[in-house]
Amino acid sequence: MSQLKTYLDLVKTTDNYPLVDITQLPYAEDPEKGLYQLLLPNDLRPHGFMLPSVVRQMPWTSDFSISHERPRTVQLLDGSNGSNTAEVCNAAFKKVIDKAQEAQVFANLHKVWPEDYKVLGAKYEGRVQLLRAAASLFGVSCRGAHMTVYTRTESGELKIWVPRRSKLMQTWPGKLDTTVAGGVRAEESPFECIVHEADEEASLPEAMVRKNARPVSAITYVAESAAGSGGEFGLCVPDVLYCYDLEVGQDVVPQPQDEEVEAFYLMSVDEVKDALLREEFKTNCASVMIDFFVRHGIINDDNEPDYLEIVTRLHRPLPVPTSAA
Amino acid sequence: MSQLKTYLDLVKTTDNYPLVDITQLPYAEDPEKGLYQLLLPNDLRPHGFMLPSVVRQMPWTSDFSISHERPRTVQLLDGSNGSNTAEVCNAAFKKVIDKAQEAQVFANLHKVWPEDYKVLGAKYEGRVQLLRAAASLFGVSCRGAHMTVYTRTESGELKIWVPRRSKLMQTWPGKLDTTVAGGVRAEESPFECIVHEADEEASLPEAMVRKNARPVSAITYVAESAAGSGGEFGLCVPDVLYCYDLEVGQDVVPQPQDEEVEAFYLMSVDEVKDALLREEFKTNCASVMIDFFVRHGIINDDNEPDYLEIVTRLHRPLPVPTSAA
Repeated sequence: MSQLKTYLDLVKTTDNYPLVDITQLPYAEDPEKGLYQLLLPNDLRPHGFMLPSVVRQMPWTSDFSISHERPRTVQLLDGSNGSNTAEVCNAAFKKVIDKAQEAQVFANLHKVWPEDYKVLGAKYEGRVQLLRAAASLFGVSCRGAHMTVYTRTESGELKIWVPRRSKLMQTWPGKLDTTVAGGVRAEESPFECIVHEADEEASLPEAMVRKNARPVSAITYVAESAAGSGGEFGLCVPDVLYCYDLEVGQDVVPQPQDEEVEAFYLMSVDEVKDALLREEFKTNCASVMIDFFVRHGIINDDNEPDYLEIVTRLHRPLPVPTSAA
Repeated sequence: MSQLKTYLDLVKTTDNYPLVDITQLPYAEDPEKGLYQLLLPNDLRPHGFMLPSVVRQMPWTSDFSISHERPRTVQLLDGSNGSNTAEVCNAAFKKVIDKAQEAQVFANLHKVWPEDYKVLGAKYEGRVQLLRAAASLFGVSCRGAHMTVYTRTESGELKIWVPRRSKLMQTWPGKLDTTVAGGVRAEESPFECIVHEADEEASLPEAMVRKNARPVSAITYVAESAAGSGGEFGLCVPDVLYCYDLEVGQDVVPQPQDEEVEAFYLMSVDEVKDALLREEFKTNCASVMIDFFVRHGIINDDNEPDYLEIVTRLHRPLPVPTSAA
């Protein structure tokens, strides 16, 4: 059996991009590591960081201007004089992504999600968005929403509803997961994502979720996409997980509805701990559970030597803007 | 009336050291800004960062070796061959601090706290500690513990117990504060600090606090000491606040016991919000209340445009180690 991990190991497995100041590019003299800043019109703040190999292979259109000088930049151009910049950006992203899909240059773009992700921190009227499967290629922020559903027994013991992912899933087959979780579509809020995922994944009634689900934190990290993920590797992916808690009565039992979940287990805190340290959870769901443990006093300064590093590392400052200002 | 602040403004007022990579010293060519790394024996990780003006004025003993070359360092020496490094460090700190107090070179050292603070992340057998009033001069981490006491009315409304500091306090007179808070002495845990402060400041029974106080998070920030604080200014002070929640019944009423608290008010969430945005709270207590609001869903992504920046900024990575490894 492999060595048990620590909680900090698990957090670092999710937040696994090197702890360099990504905004101070280029961070290395290595030409393959000096990332390109993705710049939206009239905004000096980089909204993403792109690998040189991706910039080289992308079938750029005239909507973008590429500079190979330092700092290396991919500038999205706005010919509209700023009257509808968000639409201009969305059309430019769609055009170049369609072209890349046709040319079949990136494995990432063969993934099946049909929805768009929102680019966080864009400062225009209207929303900037691009195909979910392309977000990591451009290095823009991705958003997920995760809700931990738990109950208390008569004796007051806290128990957590934990799903096992279907063995047929494209990503993380057979791993344990957050009770309810999903990628947040461009056009919805994290809370609305949780409401429909709670129905689709766990058959939880909408009215109950709307009334009792509580926003409690956000986890931020920067992931480096790994070899074997089925896509490009070495990408710099800033990620946000909006976290919710939902305490339910013992009569509420989540039921799989779509084909993503094999079964739900009602696990004790000790059972969840063991499963975490044996790496049975999907990696970013481990971070969500560790954040839950921190907020509920299960992990604390008296029992965990890495407490402070865990707490700060669960909230890594992102290298991209998260608000318009 | 002055402009109302935003929650993010308040968090930045507490975490007000420039967002530079302090560990990559010197961060500026300005000779007054190139901080000195405080190095403990046989450990390459800086445990503190000291201002050039402080290094120049400190009446160093032979226990320390100062290098003015880059990287500038203050190296604590261990003549014991590592057999009792913690004691060697503690004696060296005491000797130089005593000497500085006698010579009356630093306003900070005239402050009255007689207790020691622990140096976080020291890797030896035994604890490394130094006089609380000297911690910020050496730039080592400081620890506080804060507990928010709240109740729910019959209708389920959340109300928070908020003390006003005595107008006679040396620091932050008349400001609103966390229900129970104090600096964590070297020899105690944050939880033990909360237990005795809950008695001393709010007359809350020890047994009830031990049973029901819940560790819920830690806030980390780096403060730049300000002119007018009664001590040296421009110091780089890494700070940790261990946060606890305590829900009590409506029959529990905190009562001032020592002379630090003028009165306790039972405030609604809206009253607390207003007081925060009018800057009526001691600055780091505002961060504790904002963290409480995040964890209780009062501030969330749907109602706060700066949500993600608030959440990450409440947990700034510290430039000093927080664990022995």
